[in-house]
Amino acid sequence: MATTRNLLRWILDSIADRGLSFRGNLSYAPIKKLCQDLVSEPGEASGTAIAREIADRYTALGNGDRLKFFESLLEPNWLADPEQVLRSATEYSSQPTAAHLSKLFRLAEPRRQELFRRINMGPRGTETIVNMRRDLLALLPENPALEPINADLIHLLSSWFNRGFLEMRRIDWRTPAIVLEKLIHYEAVHEIHGWPDLRRRLQDDRRCFAFFHPALPEEPLIFVQVALTRGLPTAIQPLLDITAEPADLASVDTAAFYSISNCLDGLRNISFGAFLLKQVIHELETEELKLKNFVTLSPIPGFRAWLAREHPGVAAANASGITPAQRSTLLHWCVRYLTATLPSGRAADPVTHFHLSNGASIERINWRADNSPKGIQRAFGLMVNYAYKPARIERNHEQYVKQGRFAMSDGVAAFLREPDAARKPA
Amino acid sequence: MATTRNLLRWILDSIADRGLSFRGNLSYAPIKKLCQDLVSEPGEASGTAIAREIADRYTALGNGDRLKFFESLLEPNWLADPEQVLRSATEYSSQPTAAHLSKLFRLAEPRRQELFRRINMGPRGTETIVNMRRDLLALLPENPALEPINADLIHLLSSWFNRGFLEMRRIDWRTPAIVLEKLIHYEAVHEIHGWPDLRRRLQDDRRCFAFFHPALPEEPLIFVQVALTRGLPTAIQPLLDITAEPADLASVDTAAFYSISNCLDGLRNISFGAFLLKQVIHELETEELKLKNFVTLSPIPGFRAWLAREHPGVAAANASGITPAQRSTLLHWCVRYLTATLPSGRAADPVTHFHLSNGASIERINWRADNSPKGIQRAFGLMVNYAYKPARIERNHEQYVKQGRFAMSDGVAAFLREPDAARKPA
Amino acid sequence: MATTRNLLRWILDSIADRGLSFRGNLSYAPIKKLCQDLVSEPGEASGTAIAREIADRYTALGNGDRLKFFESLLEPNWLADPEQVLRSATEYSSQPTAAHLSKLFRLAEPRRQELFRRINMGPRGTETIVNMRRDLLALLPENPALEPINADLIHLLSSWFNRGFLEMRRIDWRTPAIVLEKLIHYEAVHEIHGWPDLRRRLQDDRRCFAFFHPALPEEPLIFVQVALTRGLPTAIQPLLDITAEPADLASVDTAAFYSISNCLDGLRNISFGAFLLKQVIHELETEELKLKNFVTLSPIPGFRAWLAREHPGVAAANASGITPAQRSTLLHWCVRYLTATLPSGRAADPVTHFHLSNGASIERINWRADNSPKGIQRAFGLMVNYAYKPARIERNHEQYVKQGRFAMSDGVAAFLREPDAARKPA
Amino acid sequence: MATTRNLLRWILDSIADRGLSFRGNLSYAPIKKLCQDLVSEPGEASGTAIAREIADRYTALGNGDRLKFFESLLEPNWLADPEQVLRSATEYSSQPTAAHLSKLFRLAEPRRQELFRRINMGPRGTETIVNMRRDLLALLPENPALEPINADLIHLLSSWFNRGFLEMRRIDWRTPAIVLEKLIHYEAVHEIHGWPDLRRRLQDDRRCFAFFHPALPEEPLIFVQVALTRGLPTAIQPLLDITAEPADLASVDTAAFYSISNCLDGLRNISFGAFLLKQVIHELETEELKLKNFVTLSPIPGFRAWLAREHPGVAAANASGITPAQRSTLLHWCVRYLTATLPSGRAADPVTHFHLSNGASIERINWRADNSPKGIQRAFGLMVNYAYKPARIERNHEQYVKQGRFAMSDGVAAFLREPDAARKPA
Repeated sequence: MATTRNLLRWILDSIADRGLSFRGNLSYAPIKKLCQDLVSEPGEASGTAIAREIADRYTALGNGDRLKFFESLLEPNWLADPEQVLRSATEYSSQPTAAHLSKLFRLAEPRRQELFRRINMGPRGTETIVNMRRDLLALLPENPALEPINADLIHLLSSWFNRGFLEMRRIDWRTPAIVLEKLIHYEAVHEIHGWPDLRRRLQDDRRCFAFFHPALPEEPLIFVQVALTRGLPTAIQPLLDITAEPADLASVDTAAFYSISNCLDGLRNISFGAFLLKQVIHELETEELKLKNFVTLSPIPGFRAWLAREHPGVAAANASGITPAQRSTLLHWCVRYLTATLPSGRAADPVTHFHLSNGASIERINWRADNSPKGIQRAFGLMVNYAYKPARIERNHEQYVKQGRFAMSDGVAAFLREPDAARKPA
Repeated sequence: MATTRNLLRWILDSIADRGLSFRGNLSYAPIKKLCQDLVSEPGEASGTAIAREIADRYTALGNGDRLKFFESLLEPNWLADPEQVLRSATEYSSQPTAAHLSKLFRLAEPRRQELFRRINMGPRGTETIVNMRRDLLALLPENPALEPINADLIHLLSSWFNRGFLEMRRIDWRTPAIVLEKLIHYEAVHEIHGWPDLRRRLQDDRRCFAFFHPALPEEPLIFVQVALTRGLPTAIQPLLDITAEPADLASVDTAAFYSISNCLDGLRNISFGAFLLKQVIHELETEELKLKNFVTLSPIPGFRAWLAREHPGVAAANASGITPAQRSTLLHWCVRYLTATLPSGRAADPVTHFHLSNGASIERINWRADNSPKGIQRAFGLMVNYAYKPARIERNHEQYVKQGRFAMSDGVAAFLREPDAARKPA
Repeated sequence: MATTRNLLRWILDSIADRGLSFRGNLSYAPIKKLCQDLVSEPGEASGTAIAREIADRYTALGNGDRLKFFESLLEPNWLADPEQVLRSATEYSSQPTAAHLSKLFRLAEPRRQELFRRINMGPRGTETIVNMRRDLLALLPENPALEPINADLIHLLSSWFNRGFLEMRRIDWRTPAIVLEKLIHYEAVHEIHGWPDLRRRLQDDRRCFAFFHPALPEEPLIFVQVALTRGLPTAIQPLLDITAEPADLASVDTAAFYSISNCLDGLRNISFGAFLLKQVIHELETEELKLKNFVTLSPIPGFRAWLAREHPGVAAANASGITPAQRSTLLHWCVRYLTATLPSGRAADPVTHFHLSNGASIERINWRADNSPKGIQRAFGLMVNYAYKPARIERNHEQYVKQGRFAMSDGVAAFLREPDAARKPA
Repeated sequence: MATTRNLLRWILDSIADRGLSFRGNLSYAPIKKLCQDLVSEPGEASGTAIAREIADRYTALGNGDRLKFFESLLEPNWLADPEQVLRSATEYSSQPTAAHLSKLFRLAEPRRQELFRRINMGPRGTETIVNMRRDLLALLPENPALEPINADLIHLLSSWFNRGFLEMRRIDWRTPAIVLEKLIHYEAVHEIHGWPDLRRRLQDDRRCFAFFHPALPEEPLIFVQVALTRGLPTAIQPLLDITAEPADLASVDTAAFYSISNCLDGLRNISFGAFLLKQVIHELETEELKLKNFVTLSPIPGFRAWLAREHPGVAAANASGITPAQRSTLLHWCVRYLTATLPSGRAADPVTHFHLSNGASIERINWRADNSPKGIQRAFGLMVNYAYKPARIERNHEQYVKQGRFAMSDGVAAFLREPDAARKPA
C-alpha cells in the first residue's frame, strides 16, 4: 500500500514536472499570482503543475512571508461579491426556499476554499494544507484577523478527515520504523524515552492503536496506549517502567488507557479521540482476553492551580507535601474540582469533560499515582480512573450532555459528601 | 488493504450494533426523525449507530418513499435562519471583510450538509451518500425542486473525491474478480461480452487503469482501456476481436485509448477523466515500450443527427450507404461537425470538447472504423483519433480554452478546406 | 507479495540475461552439455544463467526430445561410482556407524539430484522441475526405465513441498482472476462450467480453500470446495445448481466438503489432502457459525464395476434402472463394497481409504444422490457422506491404520448386517 | 503476508493443540519416544501434534540434554539396515544402472532425515530445525561423533534454502521494527550502535538488502549494507559516522558494499552471499542513479598475523606504528598476502577468496582506512576495495576458479612488482 502510494506520489511529481516544463515561467511568478492562476484555470491541464509549485513555494517560505501569504488571502479577490450576496440573501429572506438558500450558499463561499481544494489535487497536497493550518495556528494569536482562513481550513479538513475516511490500525513491533518514530515524537502525555522505552510499550501486555488517513499513510493522526493489567492501575510509574516484566495475559482483566495523543498540529480541534476510544474498546473485546474493565489512568491537569485560586488556604496547607492524614481532605477537594463546571455547564477540567461526554464515569481517584515533579506540581500526584462501561456509555453521555449530570462511582461520590474532611483544612 | 478495510467495516458495523442495543427504539423511529436526531446530537456517542440505521433504512426505501425522504430535506428545518442570514449579508455588504463573509458562509450552509457528513461517519457511509445521489439524479427530471439537495451532494462529493484522494491502479488478470466483474458491468462504450471478452482486453498488448477512492476500495470510479498497436488504429472491430492474436510488444509504437467509462451514477459530473488520461500517459511512458503516439479511437456520437438537421440534403444523399466516392464529401462534413461550436464557443460534440480541453488535437478521421449498426447509425461508421502529444498539450489546451482554436493535424485541416467536396453533395 | 515475487522473477530473468550475454555460446550448446556444465561449475557465477537456459530449452523441447533428454539422465555420468559405493557399503556393513552411513549416503546420491537443485536456482526453476515431472509421468508407462528419475523428483519435491512450507489461503470472489481461472481448469470432481458457475460456488454459503507454495504463488496446489448447509446434504445436484439461493448462514449447521481436487500433475502422489481437510475444519471452527457436522459428499467411483465383477447377478438385476424396492439391496452391497479390502488390509475403494485413514467414518449412503450419467454409471447414483468428528478422528485413524477397523455409523452398519436384502437379488 | 503467515502459525498451533488433547499422554513421553512415533506413524493424523510437541520439548532442553538428544539420533534405529544396503550396493556394483542406484539411495538414507522432514511439518518446524543445527554446531567441536547429524541437516537445509526459494527485500526505514532490530543484533562487520546508528545507515544515500525465506518471514538470512558515494571510499570511519550528512544522490557514482553479514548460525556454510551481491548490483542498476563503480570496502582479517608468522622482520618493523615512509613497503606485503594461496590454489585470505570466486578483482589497497584498534590490530589499518565490473565478472571468475589467476588492477599489480619496496624492510 505504502509502495503504491509512494509510486503515485512520484508519478504526480513527474506529471507536475512535465507541466512545469511547459510553463517555465511558473518558477518566477510570485506565489500570490500562482494562487490566482490556479483558481482561474477553467480546465485542469496545468492545474497539477501549479498546485505543486505552490506547495513547493509555500514550504520554502519563511515565517514572515507566510504571514504575508495568509494576509493576501484576506484580500477582496478571495471573497465574494457583496452585492450579489446581499441580493441573494434578500431573496432568501423574502422567500426562504431551499433553492434560494442553495444559491446564496454558493455565492457566499469564500474563493479561498476552491484554492485549497485545488492545492489538494497536487502532489503532497493534503500534507501542504495540513501544514498551512499548523502555521496559521501559530500566527493566529498575534494575528487574529487571519481567523477567517482558519474557518475555511476547519471547514475543509473536518470534511476530509471525516471519521468515515479514517482507518484504525494496530501499532506494534511489526509496524514500520518510520511510523514508530512518530509515536516517540508525538507522545504528549508521558514522554517516550527512545526505542527501548517504545519497545516496552509495545510488548505483549500492551496495545496501541492509531487512526490514519489514506492521503497521509505514514502519519498517525491520534494514538492511544493501552496497558493490560490485573485490576485497575493505581499509579502511572509502574506502567512506564521500562524494566517491568510483561503481565501474564491469562490473568489480566483490565484495559487501561494511559495515554492518548494527537499528532498533527494542523488538525487541532478536529477531534477523533472519542471514535478512537470506542473502536479500541470494541477491538479489544474481539481478542481472546477476559477483560472486565475499560478504564483510563488520567492526569488532572488543573487541580492544583484551581485549588490555589479557589481555595488558597487548602492549597497552602498542602504545599509542602501531603501527609497520609491529609489524604481524604485532598481527595474531597479533588472531586469537587472534577465536578466543577463552567458557566456552560460542562466540566471545568478538560480531561473530565472529554471522558464524561464520551459516556465514561469518574471511577476512582488514585493517591500517589504520579510521583513525577510534573504530577506533584499539577495535582499533588493524584490521577483519575475514568471507566467506560459499555452498558452505561449511552446513558452517561445523555445525562451529562443534556442534564449536566456527572456519572461517578459510589466511592468517588462518597468523597464529595465528606463534610468533616472538607471543613478541616479550611 | 482490502482486508483491513473489511475488518474496519465489520468493526463499525459491530459498534453500530452495540449502539443500537442501547437504543432499541431506533428501529421504530421514522427516518426523518433519525436524521433530525443525528444532527442535533451534541456528541458522537450514538452518532454512528444512528448513521448506520439511516443507511439501512434508506437502502430499504422504495422509490416513492425515497422521493418523500428527499422532499423532507427541503423543509425549513434543513435550511438556515433567513433573518440571521440577511443580517449577516447586510453586514458583509456594508463592510466586505473576510471575517464577515466567513460568518455569513457559516450561517448560510444548509443543515443538510451536516446531515450528509454525519451519515458518512457510519458504516458504508460513503456508499450510502453516493447511492443517495444516484437515486436523486433519477428523480430530478420529474422533480426539479430537489435540485438544492443535488447541489449539496455535488459540493460534498467534489470535495471528498478530490483528485488528491484518488488512487490509480492498473487492472489486469491479477485483479480480484469482484473488481473485474464491475468492468463488465460498467463498460459504457464498447460492451464487454462476458469473461472471455474481458480476458482478451487484459492481455499483454492491452492496458487498463482505474481510479479508486479509499472509502470504496472495490469500486472503480472510472477506467480506461488501452490497446498497444503498431501505427494508429483505424477501426474498432479489430480491437474488440476476442480471437485476435496479441500484438508483439517489441513492435508496438502507439497507445490507443479506445474506451473510457465512468462507473458510479452517483458521481456523475464529478469528473476524473482528464486526470486519468494524463496519468495513464505518464505511466505508460515509464514502461519499457517504444511508444511514439498516444491517441484515442473515439466515436462521433452526434454527427449523423447533426447532418440530418443542419444539412438534410447531404444526409439524405448518404442515407442508403456510403460509396467510396462519397468518402471525401463525408469527411469534409465530419470535420465541419467536429469544429462546430456552441454559442459559448466550446465544441458542439461532447467528445471533441472533452479531448480538446484536455489538450489533444484532432489527428485523423477514420473511414469504415466502426461498422456496427450503432456506429453506422451515429456517424456513418466514422471514428476519430484524437492525439495527445505531450509537448503540445499545454498549448492546445490554452488555445482552445482561451481563444476557441481547435488543434488539428494538417490532414484533418485539409478536409475542411476542400470546397469542391463540400459543394458536390449540395 | 505477488508483486515482490514477480519483481524477483524479473530480476532473476535479467540477471540470467546478463549472464547469457557473457556466454553467448550458451545458446548453441546442447541441453545435455548445459546440464553437465551446471553441475560441474564450482562456483555460482554463471549458474543462474545456465539454469535459465536449461529451463528455456527444456520448455521448447517436443515430446520426442523430452524422452531423449530424460534418457540422457540415466547415463553413467549421472550415477555414482560403483566401486566407491561398494567399498563404502562394505565398510558400513562391517561397522554400521552413523558416520559410515553418512558417507555412503553422500556417495550414493544420483548426481541428477544436484542437477535438479541447481535448475531450481534459476528463474522459474521450481515451475520447470514440476513440469519435468509432469512430462516424465506421461512418458513413464511406455518407458518404465525412467522410473529412477521419477524417484529423484519425488525425493526432491516431497522435501520442497513439505507441509511446513505451504500456505493455506481462502479463495473467494476477491481472489485474483488468474487464480480463479485455475480452479475452473483443475476442478476434477464436478466440472465448473464457466465463470457464473464458479461465482455461485464462491457465494456466501460456500467456502473454498487451497494450499499454495511460495515459489508458485499463483498456482493452487490442491483446493477443496465446501457448502454450508442445514443438515447433511443428500444429493450433489442441488449443490451444483447455479441458480440455487444461497443458504441462510444463521441456520446452517453442516460443512459439506463436496469436491477436493489436486491441480498440478507434476505433484501427483505428493499428497496434501489430509492436511488441507484438517486445517479447513479448524478454520471453519474459528468462524462465527454454528457448525455441528463436518462431512463429505463423496462419489463411490468403483462400486458398479466391482459389483459387475464380483457379483454379476446383482449388477445385472440393477442394470436397467433401480426401483425403490431394490434400494436396500443395493445399499447393502454398497456397504460391502465400501468395506472390501485389498490384501494389504486397506480399503479397496480409494476414496474410502483416503477418508478413513484421515480419521473419518462412513456416516451415510445417499440414494439418488448423483443423477448424472456418470453418477449412475459409476455407482447407480449413490454417494457417501464421510464424517469428520473432531473427538474421534484420532481413534478412527488409529483403528483403521493399525487394526484395519472401518469406522461407520450405526445406520451404515445396519445395512451390512441385513442378510435378507443381501440374498434377495442373488 | 506476515499476517497470513502468523495466522497460519496460529492455526497450526491450534491444530496441534487439538491433536494433543486426543493424546494427553504425549506430554509425558520422552522426546526420544516421540521422535520414534513421529516417523513410524503411517498417516499424518497426529503427526502435526507430535511434531509440535517435539519442537516444544526440544526448545526446553538444557545443553546437556541436547547433547543426549543428538546422541540418541546416532543409534542404530536411525540408521539403515546394513545387510540390505550391502546387498543393494553389490547389485549396483555388478550392474551399475540408474534403477539399482535409485534403490540403494533409498535404502541408504539415514532415517533421521525423515524425522527432520516431519518435524518441519509442525508449527515453527523450520525454525526448530535451524535451531537444532545451531546447537549442534556448538556441540560439534567437543563431540565430533555428531558430524553425521550435521551432514543430514546440511543436506536438508541446503535443499530447503535453495536460492530459488529465497526472496530479496530492500530494508529501509519503512521496514518493520522487528526486522530492523535483527540487523542491529546480527551486524557482524561494523557493529551497529543502537537505533540512531541504524537510522543513519538506512538514509537516502544508503541501501540495504536481505534475503528472506518464506518459512521465516521476519528473519533476514543475510544482509548487505551499501553506501552510495562519489568516488571509491578510502576509509570506513566516514561511512560509519552517524552525524555525516547524506551524500547528494545527483553526484554519486559508486556503490560501496561495506558490510555483509550472515544472520542465523544454524545456516552456517549454506551460503547465499554471492547470489545476494549479484542481485543487489542488478537492483541498483535499475534505479535512476548514475553508478559507474560497484566495489567493496573490505577488511583484511589475517594480514598482520600472516606477516608476523611469515615475515616477522617486516611485522616487527611496523609494530610500533606505521610512518608514511613505510607505506609502500606495507602495501607491497599486503598485496603479497592477498595473493598468497593455500595448497588447493585458493586465496589464503577468506575475504579475497569470496570476492575473487564471485568474479571481483582486487582494485585498490587503502592506507589508513580503518583506524579502529581492531583495524590496526588486524591489518595496520589497511582495507581493500574489491571491484565488481559486470563485463568482467564471468572472466575473472573462470580464470580464478580454473587457472588460479587473481584479477587485480594495474595499481595493485604495481605494488606486487615493486622490488625495492619489498627489499627495504627485510
